Amino acid sequence: MGENDDADIIEHHVEEEMEKRGARSHAASSSSFPESVTPSDRDREGHSGTQSSHRLLAYSDALISIIATVMILPVAHTKVEDNEELRQSVQLLLTTKIAVYLMTFMIVTVAWAAHIRLFQVIVRIDDCLALLNLACMMLITFLPYTFSLMATFPENVLGILLFCGCVMVIGVIQCLIVLYAFSRPFLLNEQIQISEHQTFYREHILKVIMRVPLMCFIASIFSFIFFQLSYALLAIVIFLPYISQSLKWCRNKAIGQVEETPDSMMFYTYLPNEPLSKERVEAFSDGVYAIVATLLILDICEDNVPDPSVVEKQFGGSLVAALQVYGPEFLAYFGSFATVGLLWFTHHSLFLHVTKTTRFMGLLNTFSLAFVGGLPLAYQLTHEFPDNSRNELEAIQISCVIIFFAGIFQLAIWVVALYSEQETLHPYVRYGGREHVFMLAKLALYPCVALGTFFLTCILSKFSAPIFHLMEITVPFAFLLLRLLVRIGLALLRLIFCPDRPDTRSIVVEEDETRVPFNALVT
Amino acid sequence: MGENDDADIIEHHVEEEMEKRGARSHAASSSSFPESVTPSDRDREGHSGTQSSHRLLAYSDALISIIATVMILPVAHTKVEDNEELRQSVQLLLTTKIAVYLMTFMIVTVAWAAHIRLFQVIVRIDDCLALLNLACMMLITFLPYTFSLMATFPENVLGILLFCGCVMVIGVIQCLIVLYAFSRPFLLNEQIQISEHQTFYREHILKVIMRVPLMCFIASIFSFIFFQLSYALLAIVIFLPYISQSLKWCRNKAIGQVEETPDSMMFYTYLPNEPLSKERVEAFSDGVYAIVATLLILDICEDNVPDPSVVEKQFGGSLVAALQVYGPEFLAYFGSFATVGLLWFTHHSLFLHVTKTTRFMGLLNTFSLAFVGGLPLAYQLTHEFPDNSRNELEAIQISCVIIFFAGIFQLAIWVVALYSEQETLHPYVRYGGREHVFMLAKLALYPCVALGTFFLTCILSKFSAPIFHLMEITVPFAFLLLRLLVRIGLALLRLIFCPDRPDTRSIVVEEDETRVPFNALVT
Repeated sequence: MGENDDADIIEHHVEEEMEKRGARSHAASSSSFPESVTPSDRDREGHSGTQSSHRLLAYSDALISIIATVMILPVAHTKVEDNEELRQSVQLLLTTKIAVYLMTFMIVTVAWAAHIRLFQVIVRIDDCLALLNLACMMLITFLPYTFSLMATFPENVLGILLFCGCVMVIGVIQCLIVLYAFSRPFLLNEQIQISEHQTFYREHILKVIMRVPLMCFIASIFSFIFFQLSYALLAIVIFLPYISQSLKWCRNKAIGQVEETPDSMMFYTYLPNEPLSKERVEAFSDGVYAIVATLLILDICEDNVPDPSVVEKQFGGSLVAALQVYGPEFLAYFGSFATVGLLWFTHHSLFLHVTKTTRFMGLLNTFSLAFVGGLPLAYQLTHEFPDNSRNELEAIQISCVIIFFAGIFQLAIWVVALYSEQETLHPYVRYGGREHVFMLAKLALYPCVALGTFFLTCILSKFSAPIFHLMEITVPFAFLLLRLLVRIGLALLRLIFCPDRPDTRSIVVEEDETRVPFNALVT
Repeated sequence: MGENDDADIIEHHVEEEMEKRGARSHAASSSSFPESVTPSDRDREGHSGTQSSHRLLAYSDALISIIATVMILPVAHTKVEDNEELRQSVQLLLTTKIAVYLMTFMIVTVAWAAHIRLFQVIVRIDDCLALLNLACMMLITFLPYTFSLMATFPENVLGILLFCGCVMVIGVIQCLIVLYAFSRPFLLNEQIQISEHQTFYREHILKVIMRVPLMCFIASIFSFIFFQLSYALLAIVIFLPYISQSLKWCRNKAIGQVEETPDSMMFYTYLPNEPLSKERVEAFSDGVYAIVATLLILDICEDNVPDPSVVEKQFGGSLVAALQVYGPEFLAYFGSFATVGLLWFTHHSLFLHVTKTTRFMGLLNTFSLAFVGGLPLAYQLTHEFPDNSRNELEAIQISCVIIFFAGIFQLAIWVVALYSEQETLHPYVRYGGREHVFMLAKLALYPCVALGTFFLTCILSKFSAPIFHLMEITVPFAFLLLRLLVRIGLALLRLIFCPDRPDTRSIVVEEDETRVPFNALVT
């Protein structure tokens, strides 16, 4: 390609310009590369392998979200017989598996939060860090298995030892990552790069990271002496930062601000209002919603294609008749997909108006996602039982409970965001904002529908799964009509209560406008 | 929250500033919202629900990549017996399932490419478009099932009808999306927004989109008369754009540029060098790699936790002894994870230096991903057979073939990119660039290793699966040493062949520097 003359270069640049305007005007596509070729990088000879960490983090988020969610499959695949004798043992097994699922979800999300914190400090990567991170991911994906072992053989030390071993190796790899990154400061967060306390930061971060492997080491030693103590230690490892920091935060709120030096507070603080990368929270949530939506069709593809010989023998060669047996499952699939899709949709609407994600909001989001992850179980249950049986009713109730909690935790995120709306919400949706009521209606729709259905099942004491799934499919239309309904409702309210006062919206706009020049003055 | 005074606002802004510097300096987090609240948007009353489409597309990518990949599971779960009699029928079944997998992958990626094209035209969304898109996704996730039906009952019209029905509904939804978006031009690409030929664009896009449902409609009618013809029609539907445009492209290359009006050429051209959103290609690839890596651990978690009663009876209560049976599977897991992780790593390194993705590169990427999706099958095969059996050798050879093709198509992407390097590659990795040789070595490592192992198995005619997996685990270290080795090799070559000429790197740097001012002049 030696014949490139000036005309070529001009053409290339014109094309680039056109492409930039032509393609989606999203910043990431244009910013992912330039970040790694800024002039300051070029000057540093030998650092040419330095890269933006964006895609590595997206991949890690995808891996972790899938790992957190797939552990619902062993739960969903447990066959629940309609037989009273077997029921006891199956229910015990089911409870164990659900506990494993929830604990795995918790542990994996804790590991994920640690990963976010680590890569809020290290903002650029090179090949070596990418490979170390992959090794870390490999061990994180192995954690669910060690957890299954612990749940199946609670009195055997092997599960504890394997789990502790994994966590210790992950800790060591994370320490290596930190040491490597601090030995090449251009990989670090700009703030730490220019800070005088770099060594202090390194020590602080290493201390925080090493705490977990150390506890696990002690737990693994105790497992030989008195294994119950090991479990207690492991539980402390996971929940200690939450408990201690919640207590500290409550105390601070109660007796007034006892500020530590802001320099040491920026990273690894575990405070409830510590910022959590919004982008990564979104990526993780997307991963969970996507895998949950597709787990459903996976089951259908594996189980619901009838065997040709069976069709020949039992249905006289009529495929339509053979597929009619699976009818309820298809309905259940479309109903569940609609529910997952719409829960994603409300999540998407919510985070579109959130400007900063805090640690506490992340925790609530995790709870919401844990229930979303339970939807494949609900799907499995609702189409498994014969019509109008007691079990079918219970299955529908379980589905309602799962959907209710998935929705109510989303609502809780918004409530928490409203609590400090100046920092975390866009003016549009703040209290009194233009979109405030509409957002509330959007977030409240699913909890309300689920609650309503739940009480309906209690009152009617019979309810058909197909009707339930048809309801699920019709909810999207409720969302389409929502904006209309909210507007009509608000207009009516305004007409009734204050027909001649100017409406609140214009006040908000005025307030907005008085605020804008001041902001411009500050920044 | 009425007590917000000036001090609060200042504090808030200082915090925002700190956060911006503190958090990962990625543009998406700061740009995803401001896009939807630019002053020009505020002016348009009633359009307040308009949103950046970024996250919707990321979620769609995740869904589609998972759907494309999970169809390998029915293949991987087919039990291959070591029994000569059964082998024939099982191999037939396996071939059918592999065909289903590959065809599903192809069809889903075609749907994905259509989705990219659509949302390169529509760059902003509102609630209505988001819901329409979710409906579209629901039907796309249902396609694999209709395909399984077609493969299991090739002579039954039901599969064809279901498939055609889905495709037609998807087409209608896409048309609705286009009509809706063109009725609200602020949702469109800026280029179309300011264009005078908006109506022409709409007609053109609708025509392209409607082509597929129309063909499917004809195919579904023919399925009642002569069903073989329907399959031929469906094959044409899928491959027609590729074939016709490749032919047109070849003709253009042969008899000279027959340019159409550039105005009609920007979108929906199907030319091999039509730009394809790089960001979405990356997101889709990430999804495939992530799901492949985690499918492995999913199988382990479901199948490899021994039953307590079995451990008690067969192994005298020794869990370690019971788990030793699964030893090869754990090794296979770590080996496969390392392979998937490193293939992702080379993909990541490659696309970091790609500045523009074309349609042809996207196609090669799809081929590479289709083989990556086959890795769970390789994993399943390699640990299933007894040591040193004929089958084990074949399983290792299949693994090598899969890895080889996954790697060679990545290399092909780079070669294609080099062919028009002025447009598609960053100067660093262009021919003669600083990182050129290193990138080549990185991309060539896996094909070389796989090919070497394949011939080794042919020569030795025996090879143990554990050794194969240990090899897989040691490859990362080859990557770590690669940079060192390439440097030593280059230095040696330079020392031997041209000891006193200045090395090529400095020439490249000079060339770079002479180019920079000119670029600055153009832009």
